[in-house]
Amino acid sequence: MKFTLPIIGTHRISITQPKRKSEPGKVPGSFEINETAMPSKMSVYSYEALALDEFKTNDIKEAIKFMDQFPDRTHWLDVQGLGTQEVLDFIKEKYNINSLVMEDIVNTYQRPKNEEYGHYLFVISRMIELSKGLQLKNEQLSFLLFDNLLISFQEDDDDVLEPVRTRLRKNVNGNMRKLGPSYMIYALMDTVIDHYFTIVNRLGDELEIVEDHLYQKPRKLLMYRIQGVKKLMITMRRAAWPERDKINDFLRSTNPLIHQETKVFFRDAYDHSIQIIDLIESMRETATSLLDLYLSLMSNKMNEVMKTLTIISAIFIPLTFIVGVYGMNFANQDPVTGAILENNMPELYHPNGYLYVLGVMLFIVVAQIWYFVRRGWFGD
Amino acid sequence: MKFTLPIIGTHRISITQPKRKSEPGKVPGSFEINETAMPSKMSVYSYEALALDEFKTNDIKEAIKFMDQFPDRTHWLDVQGLGTQEVLDFIKEKYNINSLVMEDIVNTYQRPKNEEYGHYLFVISRMIELSKGLQLKNEQLSFLLFDNLLISFQEDDDDVLEPVRTRLRKNVNGNMRKLGPSYMIYALMDTVIDHYFTIVNRLGDELEIVEDHLYQKPRKLLMYRIQGVKKLMITMRRAAWPERDKINDFLRSTNPLIHQETKVFFRDAYDHSIQIIDLIESMRETATSLLDLYLSLMSNKMNEVMKTLTIISAIFIPLTFIVGVYGMNFANQDPVTGAILENNMPELYHPNGYLYVLGVMLFIVVAQIWYFVRRGWFGD
Amino acid sequence: MKFTLPIIGTHRISITQPKRKSEPGKVPGSFEINETAMPSKMSVYSYEALALDEFKTNDIKEAIKFMDQFPDRTHWLDVQGLGTQEVLDFIKEKYNINSLVMEDIVNTYQRPKNEEYGHYLFVISRMIELSKGLQLKNEQLSFLLFDNLLISFQEDDDDVLEPVRTRLRKNVNGNMRKLGPSYMIYALMDTVIDHYFTIVNRLGDELEIVEDHLYQKPRKLLMYRIQGVKKLMITMRRAAWPERDKINDFLRSTNPLIHQETKVFFRDAYDHSIQIIDLIESMRETATSLLDLYLSLMSNKMNEVMKTLTIISAIFIPLTFIVGVYGMNFANQDPVTGAILENNMPELYHPNGYLYVLGVMLFIVVAQIWYFVRRGWFGD
Amino acid sequence: MKFTLPIIGTHRISITQPKRKSEPGKVPGSFEINETAMPSKMSVYSYEALALDEFKTNDIKEAIKFMDQFPDRTHWLDVQGLGTQEVLDFIKEKYNINSLVMEDIVNTYQRPKNEEYGHYLFVISRMIELSKGLQLKNEQLSFLLFDNLLISFQEDDDDVLEPVRTRLRKNVNGNMRKLGPSYMIYALMDTVIDHYFTIVNRLGDELEIVEDHLYQKPRKLLMYRIQGVKKLMITMRRAAWPERDKINDFLRSTNPLIHQETKVFFRDAYDHSIQIIDLIESMRETATSLLDLYLSLMSNKMNEVMKTLTIISAIFIPLTFIVGVYGMNFANQDPVTGAILENNMPELYHPNGYLYVLGVMLFIVVAQIWYFVRRGWFGD
Amino acid sequence: MKFTLPIIGTHRISITQPKRKSEPGKVPGSFEINETAMPSKMSVYSYEALALDEFKTNDIKEAIKFMDQFPDRTHWLDVQGLGTQEVLDFIKEKYNINSLVMEDIVNTYQRPKNEEYGHYLFVISRMIELSKGLQLKNEQLSFLLFDNLLISFQEDDDDVLEPVRTRLRKNVNGNMRKLGPSYMIYALMDTVIDHYFTIVNRLGDELEIVEDHLYQKPRKLLMYRIQGVKKLMITMRRAAWPERDKINDFLRSTNPLIHQETKVFFRDAYDHSIQIIDLIESMRETATSLLDLYLSLMSNKMNEVMKTLTIISAIFIPLTFIVGVYGMNFANQDPVTGAILENNMPELYHPNGYLYVLGVMLFIVVAQIWYFVRRGWFGD
Repeated sequence: MKFTLPIIGTHRISITQPKRKSEPGKVPGSFEINETAMPSKMSVYSYEALALDEFKTNDIKEAIKFMDQFPDRTHWLDVQGLGTQEVLDFIKEKYNINSLVMEDIVNTYQRPKNEEYGHYLFVISRMIELSKGLQLKNEQLSFLLFDNLLISFQEDDDDVLEPVRTRLRKNVNGNMRKLGPSYMIYALMDTVIDHYFTIVNRLGDELEIVEDHLYQKPRKLLMYRIQGVKKLMITMRRAAWPERDKINDFLRSTNPLIHQETKVFFRDAYDHSIQIIDLIESMRETATSLLDLYLSLMSNKMNEVMKTLTIISAIFIPLTFIVGVYGMNFANQDPVTGAILENNMPELYHPNGYLYVLGVMLFIVVAQIWYFVRRGWFGD
Repeated sequence: MKFTLPIIGTHRISITQPKRKSEPGKVPGSFEINETAMPSKMSVYSYEALALDEFKTNDIKEAIKFMDQFPDRTHWLDVQGLGTQEVLDFIKEKYNINSLVMEDIVNTYQRPKNEEYGHYLFVISRMIELSKGLQLKNEQLSFLLFDNLLISFQEDDDDVLEPVRTRLRKNVNGNMRKLGPSYMIYALMDTVIDHYFTIVNRLGDELEIVEDHLYQKPRKLLMYRIQGVKKLMITMRRAAWPERDKINDFLRSTNPLIHQETKVFFRDAYDHSIQIIDLIESMRETATSLLDLYLSLMSNKMNEVMKTLTIISAIFIPLTFIVGVYGMNFANQDPVTGAILENNMPELYHPNGYLYVLGVMLFIVVAQIWYFVRRGWFGD
Repeated sequence: MKFTLPIIGTHRISITQPKRKSEPGKVPGSFEINETAMPSKMSVYSYEALALDEFKTNDIKEAIKFMDQFPDRTHWLDVQGLGTQEVLDFIKEKYNINSLVMEDIVNTYQRPKNEEYGHYLFVISRMIELSKGLQLKNEQLSFLLFDNLLISFQEDDDDVLEPVRTRLRKNVNGNMRKLGPSYMIYALMDTVIDHYFTIVNRLGDELEIVEDHLYQKPRKLLMYRIQGVKKLMITMRRAAWPERDKINDFLRSTNPLIHQETKVFFRDAYDHSIQIIDLIESMRETATSLLDLYLSLMSNKMNEVMKTLTIISAIFIPLTFIVGVYGMNFANQDPVTGAILENNMPELYHPNGYLYVLGVMLFIVVAQIWYFVRRGWFGD
Repeated sequence: MKFTLPIIGTHRISITQPKRKSEPGKVPGSFEINETAMPSKMSVYSYEALALDEFKTNDIKEAIKFMDQFPDRTHWLDVQGLGTQEVLDFIKEKYNINSLVMEDIVNTYQRPKNEEYGHYLFVISRMIELSKGLQLKNEQLSFLLFDNLLISFQEDDDDVLEPVRTRLRKNVNGNMRKLGPSYMIYALMDTVIDHYFTIVNRLGDELEIVEDHLYQKPRKLLMYRIQGVKKLMITMRRAAWPERDKINDFLRSTNPLIHQETKVFFRDAYDHSIQIIDLIESMRETATSLLDLYLSLMSNKMNEVMKTLTIISAIFIPLTFIVGVYGMNFANQDPVTGAILENNMPELYHPNGYLYVLGVMLFIVVAQIWYFVRRGWFGD
Repeated sequence: MKFTLPIIGTHRISITQPKRKSEPGKVPGSFEINETAMPSKMSVYSYEALALDEFKTNDIKEAIKFMDQFPDRTHWLDVQGLGTQEVLDFIKEKYNINSLVMEDIVNTYQRPKNEEYGHYLFVISRMIELSKGLQLKNEQLSFLLFDNLLISFQEDDDDVLEPVRTRLRKNVNGNMRKLGPSYMIYALMDTVIDHYFTIVNRLGDELEIVEDHLYQKPRKLLMYRIQGVKKLMITMRRAAWPERDKINDFLRSTNPLIHQETKVFFRDAYDHSIQIIDLIESMRETATSLLDLYLSLMSNKMNEVMKTLTIISAIFIPLTFIVGVYGMNFANQDPVTGAILENNMPELYHPNGYLYVLGVMLFIVVAQIWYFVRRGWFGD
């Protein structure tokens, strides 16, 4: 996937990062809706091997009612936006969720993790998106995995999960509808990681373009670009490492909520998570090595500038001195007595004095050029 | 939380760090009050699910007497200031504390740790505060955890624990009063770690401001700032790593002093301690990468300065030479014989000599500018 | 093996790296032929201790039919090119291969790994080739190991495995034909690793040549070369580390598909994989240390340039000033009144003024040279 | 402890480091007295809870005889100086010491370690002292720990152990006399580590002073200082890491020579050893970061120097060219024909030519200053 | 051991490193004599507690026959040179050696390792020698350890093992002749490691000399030296790390070929291998820190050069401008009309114009010097 990046124009790569906003010493397990959060919208997907029903609503009670129509199916309740207190309270009560869990869902600066709580699993992924304008969005995607229900929470209605919905609708491969909610959580997590590849590859292309430009001409703008990529890599690494640990937990888990048949898929996702860490690390090394290249090139350029200055100065400063000598006004005749002062610059009165001086200067120029050539100051 | 930092004005970030002051070879287990330490003040909090009594005193015996009134309650004895020998001696005797422990409480340069001693646990946290004037205070907070009593020791009466006291008084969430002293120690430790987030976020904002200023103009002051943040990060990391290990010890501990119900909260605190280490590490990387940026920008600036010098010199030095040539006084007539010396600078007597020389100089200027433009010395 | 490398001429070392091209969220286990992939060609090698039959075809069914003629022999089915869907589908059905495995075979950006699936093993190696023009090709080599059959898949018909085919044909050492497909997979994997040595040694020679040139004259081109080698090392390390882990898995495996007799050979291959990692790491260190050398030399050179400029300027600028002084036109006679102005530059009318000035200038030159010599500015 | 360090004057921090001096291939277990070693002096301390007898001698037999008077007491035989062969031979025979152990005692370049040999333990500590003149002395302190006897060997009679002797004499805390030789070895080892803190704190103060001076004026001398501290840190780290491992061995040991009651004290010493490693590591980071600061400041200073040069050159070089132009001698009259050459520098004959030229030059100066101010070359 | 190193004269430290020369894909276990290898010479040492017989030959059969005379003795067969195929083939057949082992003996680029093969152990050490001319030779020393026979293979007849032969002949310490071939292999391995100390100490002395010279005058040659030492350190580290692991294997091995009595000696050798790694690591750190020092000093020197240039330019360029002004030829009389042009440089006709101008220039010089002194440009 090749992006044409407008190298010139955008200096800074910006990152929208969640920060811990809660007051220190707050009651643990209390969760308050952030006022700027998007109101919750819900989509319900109730499916079995040969059937799928979708339902969109803003009312959690209707969503539950809809799911209750299909007691034998698998359900995926996709909550977009964390801004409606009733929705979260209702889910907490209905499914008996620990309040520390609800707090982590709402405070969207958590690291990826996987916690087991008797009748449900609580899982966090970080969903990273890179807009065309190089704006990185680092969003939290939380899951509650029950026996035949998966609830997912995202911060807004802009996500990278559309391919999963499409596959669910098209039923391309029987597994998704057959293997229950633990396959669904795998599919969602794997899609999130797959998206990391897209971003890292795009940044890799960016680095290659930057490298090409660097070899042509090292510019400050390029350094800004490399710094920007490095900064993104620090962010992505912070997401990718715990992601790997989390999936490894899944692999080793004996929790019955994770169906045995899905283990082979989690192994695949684990491979992907290792690959992405691998890629990020070598991208960071490449970025560092490009910065070194930039500095070397700058130092080269400075050297070249200084050589230019030195060669010009070394040639002309002595010549200027010589012509200065013959610009002196030492008198050849005493102004008062009129006596001839024949020691005062007799060269000036030699018939070919001028030509001789020109000759001497030419010799100096040639000698200096010869010296600099021999020292290897010309050329590369 | 966005701070408006007075970037200009404060050069140095200062750290008040405890240092090992004891003489080498001192008797282990002996503890002597540091003369500069604050005299001890005590607050007693005796509570049960529906009741809370507070009592403030400077006399340890009165404090004990107060607690003895409520034999069935949980007590928190909050000792502020380590300057009164009697208080410490009395606690040592009354609760049968190992003298090595008392020594560690008084010598306030210990790393966070967690030691089990039969009937009590000894725990150390480091409480880090950052004043508005960027003064970092690194204080020791020691705990003795008994069956229904928690004793905490701090160096002075300035701390970050007020939110816990408020929650205890308001009884916002039933847990705090119900779950005994091991919940109280969790609440205090977690509040301390929460405060780390506040500091790190503030320093993160600082780095962002510095970065913005760097892109505008790299100044020495900004470098001082980055160095200051780096220094703070080294200090905080030294506190945060053992903090994590300590909480992990709590999690794995089978000591009955740590109630089973509080384990889930310690897991939460453990998550926080990992998050903070994570944040500190990426902040350090960011600081290092900003320093690199500063150096690159300095080197860029130098390059620009040198290019300016070189362009001006390269253009004017040759011209100055040329005008110097025609300032030479070679005579066109022998002063004695009056003979015409027609080889001496005949150009000077050409009707348009001056114009021709001006033309030559103009050509040289144009040629040089063309050369520098082609070499890409102008522009970025 | 000494290569004569055309140091001058090729600036950039290029790497043909496979990238994850699949769409995020794609159905796991689905595999689609990449349209640019080479159509599949197959070679079958059916052998036993004293016999070998080879067969080349483009039709997978014929290949199977050929192998069925020799039910007691060991077979190696060598598939070159992944562009024919029927071949892959047929193999998947015939040998009952997991579709995640087929996907990994087709998506040729996998890390080396070793996965056990009941009746077969799935193994991935990365085959790295370095063309004469310093083009690095990083190809995937996948294996399916059955009881008496080994299927290998490569991306095209250009490989490093010819020596194995030769040994199989010549039957140099009895082992290859006797020890079944697990020896064959060892032989292929070991040949791939052996080829890493060739590449690393070649790059080592490159670094030595670069070092020789650096000591003579540090040029930008040499820095490009070192950067190029560093980049290759990052790529090779990404292949070599998981390679080692994979072979270690073989060593520890108790899977009956890996014959006990071949374990000693895998130990040998394991040694090789450790050696190559070792070599790559010290090559990277050497490359880094050459870059440092380059920077030190550049800084030395700059110093030398600046010293030249400073010496010339320091000598001639004061002299030019002096001759300028005596080029001033202060009048010795008032133009209007004709009065003698004897304070105005009487030196100009001294009989030996000119000689005295020349003497003063000579003294200045000598003094300055003496000063610079004493400061150690001449010489090294 | 605040030292007033004479920053100016001492350039180099020197380290007296032991080096392996033995010939390669020497018989293992043979030990030869180094001829430059100090002759052995011995002090015997025989003590029990309420009694202490001291005895100083140069004769090992007398020392043994002295100890034999008190068969029920604990003995500490403190050997200072390793230069007397008889003493070492006698101890080897009398206490049946392995000759490899004797070799390690004499060859004083060993790492800290702890080896168990049936009836005795062999322990090595490194005793580091820093003289006022910043001379670091890295001495070996070896112990043989028996059931009721501790023999210690030091290289000379200058040590840091005096506080232990004082405590033994004053019997400040009952433990020392009661807990036998394993407490004594703890007390000595802990005193050695305590002294590390003194050194590291002193070097920390040094770094702070250096930092203060750096902010005022970056001088070469300060860089030497930082390098010196870094070098000391490398040395101390080499001693501190194995020290920690050694004490950990003590903690885990089940050897009856280490009394169970002393375990809690070894835990304390272990804490100290971790703290000191921690301190050394952050000191090294601080030193590295000060070096970076020095380099940044140097680069800043260079920038400032270059800006000064460039501003002066940029202003005056063009002006000098202009005045050079009007110093040219183009004739306004043909010397032979006397014709007026009116194209030759008519400006010179304009009534206000001089004033106009001065005006032009003033304009150029103002324009340039305006340009440099706008580029931000003045100020910081 | 203090070497007087001829600092001036030798620029490059060279390393004779073995490289993998075999063709990739070669038959494993096949071994071909390298044509450039030295023909094999053999020395046989047959010994028991009180007797030793030596025998030198070029014929392996005679060597065997010689050993057969003393069936109850321990034998050491020392093979120098790997160039005679018959010798190797004969040993392979006679002692039933695995062909992979023979291959490793001949291909002398192996890492140190220790492999157990039923009736014998196969051990590889790397013997590193440093010639006076700073030529590092990295040779392979292979061992086959049998019940009462040790066979050693070296690449040529130049080794560091002479001290062992001397001890065997002189029977200094009874152990060597009594403890069988596992003591002999220990003695040889330990002597090899002991030689590492000699080399590292020598390089340490080198670094100290370089440091002394650096403080006097930073020269390019010194940087070459540091780079050379760093390169040697990379090589030695690659040998030392696996050496440590190998000896650790010996320590843990329960193989009866390693006599229990020799275990304590292997523990000693293990200590040595850890010490040498320790030394190498701190030497590398020291070398890196010297390179940093070199760069800082270079940057200091550059600063000084630039300051000199700037001071001289800043003083004389303005003065040259001023004298240029009064060298202009503005006319005081119209050449045609003869009118007095009194605005044209009236200063030139002032009776003390010249003195005033000299005064102004003196003032400028003083002002500038005062400015530079205040800015701290003079002195350090």
